[in-house]
Amino acid sequence: MFDRSTAALLRRAFGPLVRRGHLSVRLPDGQTLVFGDGGLPRAGIRFTDRRAVWALLRDPDLQFGELFMQGRLQVEEGTVYDVLELFLRDAKGVPPGPFVQLLDRWRMALRPLLQRNRPNRSRANVAHHYDLDDRLYRLFLDSDRQYSCAYFETGDESLEAAQLAKKRHIAAKLLVEPGQRVLDIGCGWGGLARYLAEVAGAGHVSGVTLSTEQLEAAQRLGAASPASASLDYRLEDYRATQGPFERIVSVGMFEHVGRGNHDAFFRQCRELLTEDGVMLLHFIGNSDVPDFNNPWIEKYIFPGGSLPSLSECTPAIERAGLVVTDIEVLRLHYARTLRLWRERFMARRDEALALYDERFCRMWEFYLSMSETAFRYQDIAIFQIQLARRQEAVPLTRNYIEERKAALRAREAALSG
Amino acid sequence: MFDRSTAALLRRAFGPLVRRGHLSVRLPDGQTLVFGDGGLPRAGIRFTDRRAVWALLRDPDLQFGELFMQGRLQVEEGTVYDVLELFLRDAKGVPPGPFVQLLDRWRMALRPLLQRNRPNRSRANVAHHYDLDDRLYRLFLDSDRQYSCAYFETGDESLEAAQLAKKRHIAAKLLVEPGQRVLDIGCGWGGLARYLAEVAGAGHVSGVTLSTEQLEAAQRLGAASPASASLDYRLEDYRATQGPFERIVSVGMFEHVGRGNHDAFFRQCRELLTEDGVMLLHFIGNSDVPDFNNPWIEKYIFPGGSLPSLSECTPAIERAGLVVTDIEVLRLHYARTLRLWRERFMARRDEALALYDERFCRMWEFYLSMSETAFRYQDIAIFQIQLARRQEAVPLTRNYIEERKAALRAREAALSG
Repeated sequence: MFDRSTAALLRRAFGPLVRRGHLSVRLPDGQTLVFGDGGLPRAGIRFTDRRAVWALLRDPDLQFGELFMQGRLQVEEGTVYDVLELFLRDAKGVPPGPFVQLLDRWRMALRPLLQRNRPNRSRANVAHHYDLDDRLYRLFLDSDRQYSCAYFETGDESLEAAQLAKKRHIAAKLLVEPGQRVLDIGCGWGGLARYLAEVAGAGHVSGVTLSTEQLEAAQRLGAASPASASLDYRLEDYRATQGPFERIVSVGMFEHVGRGNHDAFFRQCRELLTEDGVMLLHFIGNSDVPDFNNPWIEKYIFPGGSLPSLSECTPAIERAGLVVTDIEVLRLHYARTLRLWRERFMARRDEALALYDERFCRMWEFYLSMSETAFRYQDIAIFQIQLARRQEAVPLTRNYIEERKAALRAREAALSG
Repeated sequence: MFDRSTAALLRRAFGPLVRRGHLSVRLPDGQTLVFGDGGLPRAGIRFTDRRAVWALLRDPDLQFGELFMQGRLQVEEGTVYDVLELFLRDAKGVPPGPFVQLLDRWRMALRPLLQRNRPNRSRANVAHHYDLDDRLYRLFLDSDRQYSCAYFETGDESLEAAQLAKKRHIAAKLLVEPGQRVLDIGCGWGGLARYLAEVAGAGHVSGVTLSTEQLEAAQRLGAASPASASLDYRLEDYRATQGPFERIVSVGMFEHVGRGNHDAFFRQCRELLTEDGVMLLHFIGNSDVPDFNNPWIEKYIFPGGSLPSLSECTPAIERAGLVVTDIEVLRLHYARTLRLWRERFMARRDEALALYDERFCRMWEFYLSMSETAFRYQDIAIFQIQLARRQEAVPLTRNYIEERKAALRAREAALSG
């Protein structure tokens, strides 16, 4: 009787979502429910206990990932990516049930509490993710350890080529001139800073990070660079950085700033930028109305993070006295990047298992899978916002971008040849 | 005694603004005040009566233009553009006096009242400007009567070439495919619609306008087009238009929508657009924090108009369920366009005088002059926002824009050859 009602609830919850493809759901009592039109993708899941089913129905945003990590929601056919795709591909326009709607409103109301990110909190948030074992990131990133959206010029080039193209694309839009001082806020393992010094000819690049693990690697790799004299890396909060800089770049860091600090962030950038300076801000944003953070990502992957909508960051940009000079929106580039990362990670999953444990590996697979579906089906996108104090800091038309990329490509060839 | 205090007030008001260049100010009692460092530009003004001086000090935003129109503020050396440049070039960071600050706050508070623009109001607002004598616009616009920002690829091409480049640039970003249905909201004299049908190969272009004068000319020119079967022009409010359309373009119309109607505008565009549709919205916006309309422009040129900041239009875009796929920002393109329009207008001022009167000619010169300074010195810019219902409606990278422009250029050559 109880399980008959569980099955009915599952049918009501999953039915409107999984209309195409094939999803089989095995319940703890052995019953199997089937959803979809029998097409592709095909996937099958199994719940080990009845409470797992109820937890998923109550709070799918948090529980799907948790139950998968705990092994209480097992994938018996296909991958967890396939399961997410089946649920999310046609989910737009399907309203969540009343309890989930209530939970969503509650999370929206609590949102400001998660977004303060004072300096100590920021350090802890960053350590949570970026201080993970260096060897983990080497399993799935490219050789330069670019941990952000690659740029696919054709769509089917290698991860290595697309990450190089990303650095080139950013360097071109940053309009780096020989001799200029560049600040890279959130420099990761230092690869973009090295590119700007070695290839784009920046006079000096300062990379700042809050991750001690990343700093150590960035310093080591920087010391080995032919442009080592032009590179310095520091463990430093952006709020403490001293300027001025002709160019500021920040890739994949703004997501950690937190909505409560947008004004402080842009005011500091304006302060650090010279009068004719140019800034390029690359971040994961939300093309939809402002939303709360995914609670699973908040809990397990990026505490204190946020994916701002344009309506959330443009007011702070204007108040800071910066002007928007260009906004490029990239979406499937990150879906493709995440798929390549996941393929590489899964191919070397045994090595990750040796570093961590089964639960960690499931968490990582879920993180890469759900992030990919977010870019494919949920209006999550990369915003590359070019900023300046004066519009005249950038050329009259955008033609300089491809011209500069051609020059950078030639310089890359000369350096490697 | 009275005039000594007038001179002192003028010194206090003009001194911090006019630091470079040379401005002489002749007062009604014959006194002459000199401002600036003696450099360029050089300009001289004369006040015919003391009340004119006080009016200017009390409300410069409204009174400068009014006094110039009335002949109570006369330009004795240089042009009114030079005078505006002297005042505005270094004005950033110079706070207005306390009385003007109070007036600004009052205007900001009153702003919503000017922005309702129900359909009848919109028609009256449009008639005020766009139903002016056709012969007036022919005096200063290019031969196709493009009454919006041209696109200067090199910076020194002719108005004619730059207006053609603008149509090409917009057609490329609109991704028009043969056979598609296109809606042009605010079609003016119909030139862009003709280009989209004749050169870009659109299947059908519907141009809507609220100006009876523009409609008549658009219909006449459309009937003479080789693509006349693909063109229709209608006197229609965008709120009344029926879809669907694969493409929507709107150039220089969104400024008349009014802040109170942003939601209605974007919701209607989403409704009219097909699932894979693309929209290009080209408008004059404000790169700074939201502001009230210039009161002189509101009173004499564009009643009910507004220049939205990105922070003012992005929330309505997100709420409507549209996604931003690209934002290009053009600024000096319009300054250059306005300068060319003004040069052409001044060269044929006698003809304008025969159509209207001296006061009208001064009004028009002031309108073109102050608009140019707004683009040069006051953070006013053109935003070209590309929108879609789904990010995948546009290609993976922006390279298609130049590729399509090359194809359009070839087609233009074939058609004219």
